[in-house]
Amino acid sequence: MTMTDFDILGIGNAIVDVLAPADDAFLDREDLVKGSMTLIDADRADALYGRMAAGVEASGGSAANTLAGLASLGARAAFVGRVRDDDLGKVFAHDIRAVGVAFDTPAATEGPGTARCLVMVTPDAQRTMATYLGACVGLGPDDVDPEKVAAAEITYLEGYLWDPENGKAAFRKAITCAHEAGRRVALSLSDAFCVHRWRGEFLDLLSNGAVDILFANESEIAALFETGDFDTALQAARALGITAALTRSEKGSVAIAGDEVHVIDAVTPEKIVDSTGAGDLFAAGFLFGLTRDLGLARAARLGSLCAAEVLAHYGPRPQVTLADFVAGRY
Amino acid sequence: MTMTDFDILGIGNAIVDVLAPADDAFLDREDLVKGSMTLIDADRADALYGRMAAGVEASGGSAANTLAGLASLGARAAFVGRVRDDDLGKVFAHDIRAVGVAFDTPAATEGPGTARCLVMVTPDAQRTMATYLGACVGLGPDDVDPEKVAAAEITYLEGYLWDPENGKAAFRKAITCAHEAGRRVALSLSDAFCVHRWRGEFLDLLSNGAVDILFANESEIAALFETGDFDTALQAARALGITAALTRSEKGSVAIAGDEVHVIDAVTPEKIVDSTGAGDLFAAGFLFGLTRDLGLARAARLGSLCAAEVLAHYGPRPQVTLADFVAGRY
Repeated sequence: MTMTDFDILGIGNAIVDVLAPADDAFLDREDLVKGSMTLIDADRADALYGRMAAGVEASGGSAANTLAGLASLGARAAFVGRVRDDDLGKVFAHDIRAVGVAFDTPAATEGPGTARCLVMVTPDAQRTMATYLGACVGLGPDDVDPEKVAAAEITYLEGYLWDPENGKAAFRKAITCAHEAGRRVALSLSDAFCVHRWRGEFLDLLSNGAVDILFANESEIAALFETGDFDTALQAARALGITAALTRSEKGSVAIAGDEVHVIDAVTPEKIVDSTGAGDLFAAGFLFGLTRDLGLARAARLGSLCAAEVLAHYGPRPQVTLADFVAGRY
Repeated sequence: MTMTDFDILGIGNAIVDVLAPADDAFLDREDLVKGSMTLIDADRADALYGRMAAGVEASGGSAANTLAGLASLGARAAFVGRVRDDDLGKVFAHDIRAVGVAFDTPAATEGPGTARCLVMVTPDAQRTMATYLGACVGLGPDDVDPEKVAAAEITYLEGYLWDPENGKAAFRKAITCAHEAGRRVALSLSDAFCVHRWRGEFLDLLSNGAVDILFANESEIAALFETGDFDTALQAARALGITAALTRSEKGSVAIAGDEVHVIDAVTPEKIVDSTGAGDLFAAGFLFGLTRDLGLARAARLGSLCAAEVLAHYGPRPQVTLADFVAGRY
């Protein structure tokens, strides 16, 4: 196998988050399910934003957050995603490059604006998201460069990419390119509703060797295997024969591969402020651990540490250099 | 005197802040003076943003922050300021309206984009700002509605408005309208460099009855009276015969009016994260106290409490409802 240019290449939706506090009654009135991600159109986005509280804007996108975390840990990271050439697109490109991620997908010069995710943060620190995909729907297989995929040790895909038709085609192409080059593919299931939408196709990908490393939280793995019992889902995941990290919020995580099963405690910050990005940053730490051959248990501990950093503040990406934050702690 | 529609009308620059961490060496390399505000043009803004770390965006603007704080305390608040009809302009308008401030200055449909302030936050929690005024330079006397000024108990002006020529004319018109209607005018000196630029004109305004209530921090009042000794500046401020609140960071504040002199302790949050907006929120609390006839000492205590809320997090505006935050504490 040839040398790699990147530890991880991520492909996902390029989104700017708008985070604002909200209460449960607001979520009810807006018909939003707490903790989930709902896709909305431009009109609904305008109307919902109009009713939201004053907020802050921060670059987001699930895979993009993970890649930002990886770069902050010191990994060689690249991202593919589509913005428009508007204010928010410039913010997205600035933020991901500023943390050291290679990002050169050209911004669209026409069509819908840069995607935004309206994130309502309830007093229990849960985040509920409504996403207008905007320019993201323009991402397609032409944006996936086979040479770049071949140059990355692991290609990381977010399940959300399965929603737009073009994204799905880009996703499939990336898997083919990676495996032809002898590289690995990682997948995040993204969201329980996303799993409901694409359950059969995700199960196919996981059973037929398309995915080597799986990330899922408790509700996503429950949706995938249609069970409310975590251990039942765990045994089903083990039967897939792949590497998987199953995250359980304050209950920690379970990392599996072959015969290995590690049950790792969560790292809880003094105060949990906002869960946005916690799963994405767990993935960053875990993937970093895999590329550094730290073993499953240390990789999962590193994931928990990275998640703890973003749990302690508003917004989905680290506010400190993760390499310093985690030093000597895993 | 007729009834008022608003407790406070604010006129100022309508700005979206881009906040990112930086170290002292970065400020040196960029030739920026820690704690100050520098005006920059569009090219410099693009270049500086390109070198800044990944950040978050949050609505800002000195007077706008104060008005947002006033609304959060429960005051009837209105704001006049100029954005463009771009992404950041929509963010500014959304955020100030969402907190309950009346804001109906039409967005410019051509010309420079919405103003942005690049805020570099150093590890000591100090903020250093570089501002591209953009669409703000379009604000002029036509935007000052005499009826609206007459309908506000106090009209609050930021010294920064003195920088663009049109802003100065708007500022003068607002003073005339307010006093013709028997209302009061408050002024924030904004920044020591701003005071250096306009020292003679500010002294004229303060000596000739144009300003009834003055806000200044220690470096601003020192610049105004060209002295490094706080007490010397304090005595000079007392000689103006107006109401003034002089803020001194961790040393607290001194509030004066006629024979009254109150020395009020600061309220220090557990952890000081970012000083952006602290002065603006002190002004919000103090002005709220004046409109509720709480007396100088309680007004200054309320100002300290409001400042403490924004010191504890990134960004220049409160993240909680201030009326709840300060309840029973002043």
